Amino acid sequence: MSSATEPTPGSLFANAIQWDAEGLLPAVVQQYDSGHVLMLAWMNLAAVEQTITTGEAHYYSRSRGVQWRKGETSGQTQRVVELRLDCDCDALLLLVDQNGVACHTGRRSCWFHGVQDGRIVVLNRPEVSPDVLYGG
Amino acid sequence: MSSATEPTPGSLFANAIQWDAEGLLPAVVQQYDSGHVLMLAWMNLAAVEQTITTGEAHYYSRSRGVQWRKGETSGQTQRVVELRLDCDCDALLLLVDQNGVACHTGRRSCWFHGVQDGRIVVLNRPEVSPDVLYGG
Repeated sequence: MSSATEPTPGSLFANAIQWDAEGLLPAVVQQYDSGHVLMLAWMNLAAVEQTITTGEAHYYSRSRGVQWRKGETSGQTQRVVELRLDCDCDALLLLVDQNGVACHTGRRSCWFHGVQDGRIVVLNRPEVSPDVLYGG
Repeated sequence: MSSATEPTPGSLFANAIQWDAEGLLPAVVQQYDSGHVLMLAWMNLAAVEQTITTGEAHYYSRSRGVQWRKGETSGQTQRVVELRLDCDCDALLLLVDQNGVACHTGRRSCWFHGVQDGRIVVLNRPEVSPDVLYGG
């Protein structure tokens, strides 16, 4: 129910993005063939441009204050199949081919906390140890 | 690669959430059976609690500064099948059964802007006119 004007088709993709006050926007990351939603990360302009240029997912770490390439330490890279911007131009959807696991805990997806009777339940266990991904 | 402590299983779901500076967190919304990613919205504590209590998706509108029930005007409601919290407890995934279309433009999904040669392309047309959804 936003009144924002839709971008003109043919305009530059990066120019159409509505950045937040920190110059970031959230990116939802989905495995392109299974439809499995893997993670949510944040991107700045440089991360969007590097992702489009290289075809490998790049993000911006809000906690570390740096741009990073997914998998640069863990090897769990993401090849980007498709990039989409939403109606309000303030959220991305990345369809990717995930190499290995997306979550730093060693799980395929970051969404492993469920809710039962209002309380946290763990839905699945790691497929690989974080020690293997990041060094023990 | 966050160093945040994972919540203890059995702790209250709402208490585990890591809110941003505005007391909000992003919620990725996915059609539970097709895997279609529909939209990204924001929730405050009341929206999370009402969603869990009623089984209908509630969000917080950052532009209007109010909590709202999805479909309260348009009739395009979302029955929540499952609610998940991610590894860092700062993003939700809602698996929903979408009644009609999720996007205010009349499209099934909000992600209809693609990128081709660095420029915006419109991937699909509305299934229903916004005039029908919100009154002409």
